[in-house]
Amino acid sequence: MSTQTPQCLIIGAGGVGVVTAYSLFLNKGSTVSLVARSDYDKASTTGYKLSSCDYGEVLNWKPHHLFRSVEDAASSKTFFDYVVVTTKNIPDGPTPVSSIIKPIIESNDKVWKERADFKEQKKTTNVVLIQNGIDIENEIKEKFDLASRQKSTTVPQVALISGIQLISSTKVGPCEIAQKGHDHLTCAAFDKNDEISVKTAQNFISLYTNPGQNQAHFDSNCRYTRWKKLLYNSSINTLTAICGLDFTRCLQFGTAEGSTEFEIVRPAMLEIIDLAKKIDDITIEVDLVDFFVDITRKMVYTPSMGVDIQKGQLMEIEVIVGNVVRSAKAHHIEVPHLSMLYNILKILQGKLKEQRGLLKFDELNAKIVE
Amino acid sequence: MSTQTPQCLIIGAGGVGVVTAYSLFLNKGSTVSLVARSDYDKASTTGYKLSSCDYGEVLNWKPHHLFRSVEDAASSKTFFDYVVVTTKNIPDGPTPVSSIIKPIIESNDKVWKERADFKEQKKTTNVVLIQNGIDIENEIKEKFDLASRQKSTTVPQVALISGIQLISSTKVGPCEIAQKGHDHLTCAAFDKNDEISVKTAQNFISLYTNPGQNQAHFDSNCRYTRWKKLLYNSSINTLTAICGLDFTRCLQFGTAEGSTEFEIVRPAMLEIIDLAKKIDDITIEVDLVDFFVDITRKMVYTPSMGVDIQKGQLMEIEVIVGNVVRSAKAHHIEVPHLSMLYNILKILQGKLKEQRGLLKFDELNAKIVE
Repeated sequence: MSTQTPQCLIIGAGGVGVVTAYSLFLNKGSTVSLVARSDYDKASTTGYKLSSCDYGEVLNWKPHHLFRSVEDAASSKTFFDYVVVTTKNIPDGPTPVSSIIKPIIESNDKVWKERADFKEQKKTTNVVLIQNGIDIENEIKEKFDLASRQKSTTVPQVALISGIQLISSTKVGPCEIAQKGHDHLTCAAFDKNDEISVKTAQNFISLYTNPGQNQAHFDSNCRYTRWKKLLYNSSINTLTAICGLDFTRCLQFGTAEGSTEFEIVRPAMLEIIDLAKKIDDITIEVDLVDFFVDITRKMVYTPSMGVDIQKGQLMEIEVIVGNVVRSAKAHHIEVPHLSMLYNILKILQGKLKEQRGLLKFDELNAKIVE
Repeated sequence: MSTQTPQCLIIGAGGVGVVTAYSLFLNKGSTVSLVARSDYDKASTTGYKLSSCDYGEVLNWKPHHLFRSVEDAASSKTFFDYVVVTTKNIPDGPTPVSSIIKPIIESNDKVWKERADFKEQKKTTNVVLIQNGIDIENEIKEKFDLASRQKSTTVPQVALISGIQLISSTKVGPCEIAQKGHDHLTCAAFDKNDEISVKTAQNFISLYTNPGQNQAHFDSNCRYTRWKKLLYNSSINTLTAICGLDFTRCLQFGTAEGSTEFEIVRPAMLEIIDLAKKIDDITIEVDLVDFFVDITRKMVYTPSMGVDIQKGQLMEIEVIVGNVVRSAKAHHIEVPHLSMLYNILKILQGKLKEQRGLLKFDELNAKIVE
């Protein structure tokens, strides 16, 4: 094993990404690079300001390296051991995750080939997806043909690490982050039978944890954790997006008999529980249905997709509910409530795309112009 | 039988109501009164302008009588034989149809009692609902206890006539109506076994028809006609409202595999066909599913509820889909697609009510303030 400091590249410099980069930086176990994009100039000069419930007021912070773009990072002749993706995951948008990380996968391949000492180390490109949803690893697996990489001796392997983060952190201005909820990161191998990924997930936690400040722990089964988070996201998050309202209003504007709760949200949640059992033999506790409905019953709160649609931003519909519905269909399991939520959101995503100029609709021929 | 000219009162002076009033007026079979509301002053002076595909350019037209409000009509000491309601039917809004017609039901009762000659004629207040939806007569039946009126000798009976109009007519300015689609009115007794209502429906058609210009015909079974119209309205109209888009975009923004059509619209339509059969033993032809989807596939068109939500107006959700879902529930028939459309629309109706100041939401206590 090399004793060289691992190189981490964080892609996505929003509320989550900057705190993630700072946590790795503070730990001192790795060299931290951040793709800062539109904040690059300010980040390079004055640095970041974090108002963090975990780390206090942090002023003028800079990671070890800053890049303006993923392409710039790819040109740096660095082998990035960890490619940590904290962007939204929108495969139906202009920048699916596979296209975001492609320059780094390819530059790592090149750097590895050029440096003889690396070959002996059997380097691995470890992709850590700190993102919502389920089956998000499949896009990467297919695009980069990970199966053949595993057998190859001419390109580095790619290990896929699942990161699920509970955090409330928002970018409130250029290079300004307000973190209001404690950071709790759960890491797992997407493939729990892949020893390299399991080891990498554990290593990443040791690079990430700052005892007494943030929390990170290893998760032996990310499918359970992801299904559990979907219980909330596929039902409540999706509904608030369709309605463009906080969930409390969605609940209260239902009929007196509780139509929102009993005709939409709970049936959709029970479909998730049913799917987790039938597809993965995973038991999601039914009590969680009450828990998730109750925590937001009295708190006027709009989850991520509801916020996205209000801001006119594309939503993570494919990873949060599209993959679920496709999976159900492949297994011949009926999920009428999730399916309706998904298929309506699909239309609304099209509406957002047209508003953002990502899609042009030809009214005369009633067709989307490619 | 009296040879006296029947008195018709039209409530609702929008695109449909004004053409309806004009059709009755031109027929010369009745005395036509119109509740003009905000257009009253202009209507009383310069009158209406109709640009009509049935009647050509009609300038400075006035009905026999104009009223500013239903209350003013009720104060006129007239017994209105026909109370023709062409407003939207929104029982969950501030003016359900029963409250709109209440002053006339009551003033007719009073006029009838005061005039001895009327008693001998066994006068009937004929309520003609030219409106969308199904089960819309029940609200009237219950509010005015029509069953006991039928046995009474101290109040006039109330007959309920179903009017279903195919017309494309819009109020484009104060007292200005543009009628682009030919008027085709279908009348029936809501209760096909009630002889008085059947006779009245037929009489109304003879007062309404202007041969060679408009079309009106008697319908022996309004349930068939209403279920058939719901096939379109409960599925396509509701979906465009949820999405705030024309139906063509709803279709095209679905996935490549036609998700809007095959996962939302057609399943919802098949639920309507199933309900009509099971509840009323009425066969709605399955071919109509293709017909309704196909007519709007290439035509960028937003149906009424989609227009309402874009304008911030309350939608006819209860009569178009709420009654359907309640009926299904009462008969223990599963209608998951219609139920989702309805329960989402219920939330959006609450959002519209809050926007219009018809509902106040107390965020602190997470409650609707009554």
